[in-house]
Amino acid sequence: MNYLYEKAGGKISYRGVRFGGKKIVFIAGPCALESEEQAIAAAEIIKKASVKIFRAPIFKPRTSPYSFQGIGTKGLNILEKIADSYRLLTAVEVMDVNQIAELENMVDILWVGARNMQNYSLLKALGKTRNLVLLKNSLCSTIEEFLLSAEYILKEGNSNLLLCVRGLRSFDSVARFPLQIEWIPALKQRTKLPICTDVSHSAGDVSIVPFNAKAAIAAGTDSIMVEVHPWPEKALSDANQQLNEEQFLSMMKELRKIANAVGRCID
Amino acid sequence: MNYLYEKAGGKISYRGVRFGGKKIVFIAGPCALESEEQAIAAAEIIKKASVKIFRAPIFKPRTSPYSFQGIGTKGLNILEKIADSYRLLTAVEVMDVNQIAELENMVDILWVGARNMQNYSLLKALGKTRNLVLLKNSLCSTIEEFLLSAEYILKEGNSNLLLCVRGLRSFDSVARFPLQIEWIPALKQRTKLPICTDVSHSAGDVSIVPFNAKAAIAAGTDSIMVEVHPWPEKALSDANQQLNEEQFLSMMKELRKIANAVGRCID
Amino acid sequence: MNYLYEKAGGKISYRGVRFGGKKIVFIAGPCALESEEQAIAAAEIIKKASVKIFRAPIFKPRTSPYSFQGIGTKGLNILEKIADSYRLLTAVEVMDVNQIAELENMVDILWVGARNMQNYSLLKALGKTRNLVLLKNSLCSTIEEFLLSAEYILKEGNSNLLLCVRGLRSFDSVARFPLQIEWIPALKQRTKLPICTDVSHSAGDVSIVPFNAKAAIAAGTDSIMVEVHPWPEKALSDANQQLNEEQFLSMMKELRKIANAVGRCID
Amino acid sequence: MNYLYEKAGGKISYRGVRFGGKKIVFIAGPCALESEEQAIAAAEIIKKASVKIFRAPIFKPRTSPYSFQGIGTKGLNILEKIADSYRLLTAVEVMDVNQIAELENMVDILWVGARNMQNYSLLKALGKTRNLVLLKNSLCSTIEEFLLSAEYILKEGNSNLLLCVRGLRSFDSVARFPLQIEWIPALKQRTKLPICTDVSHSAGDVSIVPFNAKAAIAAGTDSIMVEVHPWPEKALSDANQQLNEEQFLSMMKELRKIANAVGRCID
Repeated sequence: MNYLYEKAGGKISYRGVRFGGKKIVFIAGPCALESEEQAIAAAEIIKKASVKIFRAPIFKPRTSPYSFQGIGTKGLNILEKIADSYRLLTAVEVMDVNQIAELENMVDILWVGARNMQNYSLLKALGKTRNLVLLKNSLCSTIEEFLLSAEYILKEGNSNLLLCVRGLRSFDSVARFPLQIEWIPALKQRTKLPICTDVSHSAGDVSIVPFNAKAAIAAGTDSIMVEVHPWPEKALSDANQQLNEEQFLSMMKELRKIANAVGRCID
Repeated sequence: MNYLYEKAGGKISYRGVRFGGKKIVFIAGPCALESEEQAIAAAEIIKKASVKIFRAPIFKPRTSPYSFQGIGTKGLNILEKIADSYRLLTAVEVMDVNQIAELENMVDILWVGARNMQNYSLLKALGKTRNLVLLKNSLCSTIEEFLLSAEYILKEGNSNLLLCVRGLRSFDSVARFPLQIEWIPALKQRTKLPICTDVSHSAGDVSIVPFNAKAAIAAGTDSIMVEVHPWPEKALSDANQQLNEEQFLSMMKELRKIANAVGRCID
Repeated sequence: MNYLYEKAGGKISYRGVRFGGKKIVFIAGPCALESEEQAIAAAEIIKKASVKIFRAPIFKPRTSPYSFQGIGTKGLNILEKIADSYRLLTAVEVMDVNQIAELENMVDILWVGARNMQNYSLLKALGKTRNLVLLKNSLCSTIEEFLLSAEYILKEGNSNLLLCVRGLRSFDSVARFPLQIEWIPALKQRTKLPICTDVSHSAGDVSIVPFNAKAAIAAGTDSIMVEVHPWPEKALSDANQQLNEEQFLSMMKELRKIANAVGRCID
Repeated sequence: MNYLYEKAGGKISYRGVRFGGKKIVFIAGPCALESEEQAIAAAEIIKKASVKIFRAPIFKPRTSPYSFQGIGTKGLNILEKIADSYRLLTAVEVMDVNQIAELENMVDILWVGARNMQNYSLLKALGKTRNLVLLKNSLCSTIEEFLLSAEYILKEGNSNLLLCVRGLRSFDSVARFPLQIEWIPALKQRTKLPICTDVSHSAGDVSIVPFNAKAAIAAGTDSIMVEVHPWPEKALSDANQQLNEEQFLSMMKELRKIANAVGRCID
């Protein structure tokens, strides 16, 4: 059988940002949008590193119903302001078919988190939008299952698609969800869709994040998603894995060198 | 923190079927509803073993978008006929919030499959129905994550809830998704919600299914979900793991003995 | 290729104990032999349940070099006394080729623990003894790797061999090393060698041990290895998983019923 | 408790090769020593990249007793010739305490493979030699278990020790034993012992090997072990994962760039 994922991709351009080319594209920002003040401070930080895409989810899938569930739709105006003021593309997680209508025109990139990689109704609905979709692998996905989930989106007509490697569940407790580094070259052998790597959720700890980022670039990732918070110690979620300004800018400096070493560059 | 799952449960009665009591409740039927003829033939088989709940999904979440996706809503009339003619409760998988409206009044039990264990929108919406909900664990869930997903349903007000142990992903290739047998006693230590065990998806092969069923009863399960098909070799999905009439009736005979040995019984 | 493990086995008789027949054979005793007083007290307990094989390792493989490493060869005289006084067969773990010479004539059953399943020098050397050998699976073994390790022993000429299912490593924290219950029927499909199940190391906790034992018997195990200690709270290793007298005798009573339900019996 | 592994290490010099310094040390050669002709051809290749350590095991632990078990002790003379003619250090796997006597004076580096990480008799015996010991993690080891196995060696007095990250078993089939990339920084947070990465066994396929090597260097490894064979298609073991001359030299060229990007160098 011939799958669409085998042909799709190559270099994707989306509102002026090109994925899969020489430049490695960063998607950075807080684990969750918490307030306008926090969003502005985070945007200021990522602009210093010339990042062009701001992640700041307003809906958060949380293991416990009693954990912070995200700021909700009132965050959309904040995202719009940030997009305008800082000339940034915006990216949020979408958890449900019914959220798409209010998100698709207000936000650029809609991502599907690990928990929803096989939420096929959601995948099909995103296949009908014009947004750039970023699909993360589930915590116990095989590479074939991951590509077939991508196929659900492609089949509906949307090939603005990034595949995001984000770690797998393991008995190994060092990383929260160890990065399956081999998927980067292995995906590139199977598809031309650009590959993103989530270095924050795979590492789970600030001290490991930069190493996952370096390894991912060395292994050929086209894009990096990373959590950056202006004051991580006060974050409402994932406090341990969000980089502060100094950590983020220091990491970016090192990553530029690795990118050059593999014939890539970072803005 | 006190969770609702710690208190909820005990013996649940739903339209004349009692879960969590001395009787072990069976939920049996084909992997997917394929046709009226198939449904009738399957219902005939399970009635011979006095089973009271008929499983026959009309929507099938499939890894590939090109695989059989289920018969869809036209199956609802077939289910209604079966329910009436054979005096069976019916059970189907629900994959999406938007399917609930058409299912909740036509079907008794709505189940959440492994892929959607953390589809929180779906869990919340099911928490607002009056249906009996059966929640299966995801393939890489911890027991705590499983119970917190149950909490999403309980928190919305629906405590007609069965927890279904269905296997975990492993490197071990013998079983498709090996049964985490220890979860049965471990769940009982943490909650009074009745426990179901899916012996078909955990085994993945007809030759292993009866052993998983025996082990589950020995370990204390309150209910068993099992796939039965009148002619498995022609099944549109999961042909290897569906029991035929002879295999099913033979297994039921053996299971009655195990049930008695642990002070339980089977109708 | 035809492997020896495909043909070997059937009913094995070893010094009056028959494995693989109608009777389920128990191997019970402390995690480690600690003193003569402890060994006698443990032997007294297991005799009450008519157990015929006493486990009491004198060499303990421990993750840390600073943990209790076993009583060593001075335990051999204690074992001999127990064997004589209580008419019990004895079983200990062997970790090294160089231990075989002093163990083979003093002890009946030599077992290979999970850590040494692929210590091929040890397997070959045991294949040259006349002892009954019990081989446990490694924590991340496939069933094929396990059978091929058994082949190393058979190939050297010793077919007094028990295969012991003892759990696999998993991300699931409920059981220490969850029992791969499907291996019991799956091994029986591949070999006639009798199957033992270690219900203590797979459970890792006293509250789970009896459930693993019931499930293992329901799934067809020929033998059970279980840790019993006269005073577990003072045990030098694995305090949480050793049953005390009351727990052990209560479990045995329940297991007799399950054994009968599957057409087996327990002395 | 204070462990020896917390203090041990730093820069280790062994017969003129320094581990843990600025230079990244390569250990390269065939999966197994097959013949003098093959060993010479392999040595010629690795010399072209200025590699100083030649791996060429003479004893091979194999899952099946019917697979090629290594050339055995007659390979020692070949290794000695290679060492002399090419001025290379030599490295072989040691599987058993009883092999140490014949290896320790003929070979420089003795390594413990995944299967023997918890063969404590072997670890203790190696702790009494003066050889450089390389310890690979077992396929389902935690980082703590790995460090405690290292402790067994250190405790006996040998601190010429390299820790080798070599992949873990996973359900993910892309890589044979996916590389746990996070262990590299995590080990460096816990010990000063130099870290090696086995990029061949973790990748399992020639097309993935160079990416694992790049990622490992980016993440901070001090050393790389890699399989190189003059004619991999004729190799007696692991044919798919051994690089040929062209693949190896091409990889080395790329690795030099990554090493420079992280402030390291390669001879």
